[in-house]
Amino acid sequence: MNLWWTEQQTPGLRLGLRCEEIIERRRSAYQEIAVYRTAEYGRLLALDDMVMTTEADEFVYHEMLVHPALSTVTSARTVLIVGGGDGGCVREVCRYPAVERVVLAELDGEVIEVCRRHLPTIAGSFVDPRVEIRVGDGVAYLADVPAETFDVILVDAPDPLGPAAGLFSEAFYADAARVLAPGGVLAAQTECPFLHADLIRRVQRVLRAQFPVVGLYWAVVPTYPGAMWTFSLATKEHTDLTRARRLPVGSSRYWTQEVQAGAFALPTFLRGLVEESK
Amino acid sequence: MNLWWTEQQTPGLRLGLRCEEIIERRRSAYQEIAVYRTAEYGRLLALDDMVMTTEADEFVYHEMLVHPALSTVTSARTVLIVGGGDGGCVREVCRYPAVERVVLAELDGEVIEVCRRHLPTIAGSFVDPRVEIRVGDGVAYLADVPAETFDVILVDAPDPLGPAAGLFSEAFYADAARVLAPGGVLAAQTECPFLHADLIRRVQRVLRAQFPVVGLYWAVVPTYPGAMWTFSLATKEHTDLTRARRLPVGSSRYWTQEVQAGAFALPTFLRGLVEESK
Repeated sequence: MNLWWTEQQTPGLRLGLRCEEIIERRRSAYQEIAVYRTAEYGRLLALDDMVMTTEADEFVYHEMLVHPALSTVTSARTVLIVGGGDGGCVREVCRYPAVERVVLAELDGEVIEVCRRHLPTIAGSFVDPRVEIRVGDGVAYLADVPAETFDVILVDAPDPLGPAAGLFSEAFYADAARVLAPGGVLAAQTECPFLHADLIRRVQRVLRAQFPVVGLYWAVVPTYPGAMWTFSLATKEHTDLTRARRLPVGSSRYWTQEVQAGAFALPTFLRGLVEESK
Repeated sequence: MNLWWTEQQTPGLRLGLRCEEIIERRRSAYQEIAVYRTAEYGRLLALDDMVMTTEADEFVYHEMLVHPALSTVTSARTVLIVGGGDGGCVREVCRYPAVERVVLAELDGEVIEVCRRHLPTIAGSFVDPRVEIRVGDGVAYLADVPAETFDVILVDAPDPLGPAAGLFSEAFYADAARVLAPGGVLAAQTECPFLHADLIRRVQRVLRAQFPVVGLYWAVVPTYPGAMWTFSLATKEHTDLTRARRLPVGSSRYWTQEVQAGAFALPTFLRGLVEESK
């Protein structure tokens, strides 16, 4: 079957994945949600025709958004995930036995439903009793949370277009700083330096206005636009962000302590981009 | 202009780049050689419709094939590049003033001509007086070279299909080991672990049969299939491959000493792949 799903990643860049089955396609109040079976990347979740995750490479993104933050905080008990309706971050967070409460603030409840139904290897930890799902706007949720509620905040936002634009704003990060406990860590996905240099500079700048310690690290996610993916990390206290202080339970497929340290070794052009934001 | 150049990277994976101009397209004795002007990745060199290099991300590949090897050998005077007709490796090697002789063994002289004409930022160092171009089969060239002629051998092979298949063979690496000086280093591009796990295992195994020290490291090259790109490094003497011992002249855009060390920190699945090859 010569059927191709194509993401128009930028005006000049396309990714095509051969598609063997349209498993589900529906329109929620916010977006088109689709799950395809691809020939080579397993199942694919697409929102408005953009790759959110594939079974083949989701482990890189989810491990690298979660473990640098979680392994750096010695005593995280409460974790907030903003976005992340596919459940991949929830799965990785649930590997830490010390975590007592995981709140997932996802705008679109239908994304969660679709992923629970069709992406069980990613969304399988929603059943963990520590997980509390809050369907609604993450920005609004955060504004109502009492100060210092969470030890870790993970911003698993889709691309900064449409409904998720607020998750890259100054107001959002100011609230995140208020809600984060002392000694806590915030991690946010911040897109590709080849394609979204401005966004990285902007988020780094906004984070530095709120947090004394801000870092940037990266990983490779083949199906994401530009493939080189950055994450921004911030803490309220002086912490060596490159160093994992504790390890998750179970095995990882990408993250290791050494990989975490190496991920902070920024290629020259990326280090330059961070410097420009200062 | 809605003109797209598309690489069928695997049977189930396509990369599309918007194309603004076909600068040159011709057929040599070996392959179709084409240079396009893309909308977002600068000029693109394609051989048989596969990306060889783009102006936007060539620096990652060329710096990461050259500098880990060159910066690890303290006294490299002679360098052999097998393949590499675009001149990107030549450019990076020429940054080292101690290098006295650079031999480029490229099968297809027309690739060199086309790159000199249309990719001056990549191919600009062919004019360096230290550079000696040998047009012809790299495998045959190597078989005729006296033992211990080169301090560094760089295998800048295209994908292991068609004319370049011999550059991934056991016989080729046996000759490379013979030709390499004691204390020398060999580096070879070895494709993407998401798509070419077998090739990586095979080359690692072949190298270990010839060299006492073999390593694997990686970088991200967005326009290459799978984007996560590996390189295999081998030496005849015990050397810490992760550690750069000297620095190139001029600036780099990707490589740093820390990036080199980090590039050897293999994600779990990639470390597993190397272990399987033992």
